[in-house]
Amino acid sequence: MKVGIIGLGLIGGSMGLALRECNYASRVYGYDQLEVHVEVALQKGIVDEGCDSLEKLVQASDVVILAVPVQSIVRLLPQVLDLVDQEMVIDVGSTKQDMVESVKGHPKRSRYLPTHPMAGTEYSGPQAALQRLFEGKVCVFCDVEDSDKEVVDEILTMYERIGMDVVEYHSAEHDVHTAYVSHISHISSIALALTVLEKEKNENRIFELASGGFSSTVRLAKSNPDTWIPIFEQNRDNVLDVLDEHINVISQFRTMLIKKDFERFHALMERANDIKKILK
Amino acid sequence: MKVGIIGLGLIGGSMGLALRECNYASRVYGYDQLEVHVEVALQKGIVDEGCDSLEKLVQASDVVILAVPVQSIVRLLPQVLDLVDQEMVIDVGSTKQDMVESVKGHPKRSRYLPTHPMAGTEYSGPQAALQRLFEGKVCVFCDVEDSDKEVVDEILTMYERIGMDVVEYHSAEHDVHTAYVSHISHISSIALALTVLEKEKNENRIFELASGGFSSTVRLAKSNPDTWIPIFEQNRDNVLDVLDEHINVISQFRTMLIKKDFERFHALMERANDIKKILK
Repeated sequence: MKVGIIGLGLIGGSMGLALRECNYASRVYGYDQLEVHVEVALQKGIVDEGCDSLEKLVQASDVVILAVPVQSIVRLLPQVLDLVDQEMVIDVGSTKQDMVESVKGHPKRSRYLPTHPMAGTEYSGPQAALQRLFEGKVCVFCDVEDSDKEVVDEILTMYERIGMDVVEYHSAEHDVHTAYVSHISHISSIALALTVLEKEKNENRIFELASGGFSSTVRLAKSNPDTWIPIFEQNRDNVLDVLDEHINVISQFRTMLIKKDFERFHALMERANDIKKILK
Repeated sequence: MKVGIIGLGLIGGSMGLALRECNYASRVYGYDQLEVHVEVALQKGIVDEGCDSLEKLVQASDVVILAVPVQSIVRLLPQVLDLVDQEMVIDVGSTKQDMVESVKGHPKRSRYLPTHPMAGTEYSGPQAALQRLFEGKVCVFCDVEDSDKEVVDEILTMYERIGMDVVEYHSAEHDVHTAYVSHISHISSIALALTVLEKEKNENRIFELASGGFSSTVRLAKSNPDTWIPIFEQNRDNVLDVLDEHINVISQFRTMLIKKDFERFHALMERANDIKKILK
């Protein structure tokens, strides 16, 4: 298959590496607003060839992957579908409802499948791309009933070749569940970073004490705001919903500390331990 | 050196493995209230020999390591110092002021050095012990002026042999800084686990979406409450102080989402990115 990737950042770049390595892609074309991204992508073996327009990329490809930030997916997706004849189009963004909405009723809607590979790191750009980023992880397909069966089957094959397990959600359901699990994790980590930077004025102390758990808990706070703020914006209502619960829990901790109710704190931490039953 | 370890859990067990492997310890003695811990420690090569009383362990050792939960350190430390002649005693607990207070004015106080190796995992018990847990990490020594120079020098040698860098804090300062960096990270992670368990009733969804950052951010919530609740209890005032700031930050996020002030959210996330300058 000939694959065209729009957006050669962490996710787009990793897709290029993975799809070439498993020989799913016979040729990978890349497009990115930043010329330096295309250069790095060529050097790193992410793409075989850069394209200087969306038209050329779509014409050259069997499968087109939109891997730009979510607000750009919403803007570019209708333009890409306008260029499509029999090509297949997917996006790999972290929200889904706004994308689906942006091409509702489009004559080529059935050539598009909304997907969300649940993988990433705190780094960004093609230099951060990893060939095995997707291996053993889950990819969510949304609203499969609105895409041609041929498209769904082909994209399933593609993701399976790079080692992903595929599950199917409705797009609205996707946005609720990613807010509840993934987006709140980012907000929690960003809040932790700001808390520690505010309270701990001595950077040496942060460095020295970071291996006591801070380092891993704050990892997501290193993520790129240009990627994440548009995600919080598009998924604002669901994020607010789970954030209210998070504030509720943390306020309970505060009350327990004030009242020295360590018995209840113990019981709540035991309940938190239940996460072990779900995650290894 | 002959080393005696009181408490054969994750930290005590890992100390035994590390000190034997680097040949610092010619012989390791172990004591634990749970007989099964001693059995596992013998099987895993954590200790050469189990002792059935504190007396026997102290008599057999040059260096005694207290590696029990913090509330037990406070209880056992004076008893251990009562048994000491020229032996050296350290503890490896996550708080320091209460320990120091428990042996203030003790005739053998100068044979004791409060230490805190900043290392751990979310697992507990001797079966979780790791030989290289401490390598490349920082160990905090507290109030070194209250310990014999000979003790400080010997314990420095010991920690350096297992690959740790040593820094010196006052015990009060230690408790403030560990609250600000390490203890708040645990509370944040526990709160995230409870939030997600409350909002996301479908455990399959948690499992499927966890690789989107949740999995690493929630890691500390798997920690043992029997270890951690006594730490929060002993360090309550400092933990409350940093928790108030954390609630303040998260409440700001809520306000920004409600007001759709994504420009300010972006600026705050950029500020959170500063953590990259401190941690790689």
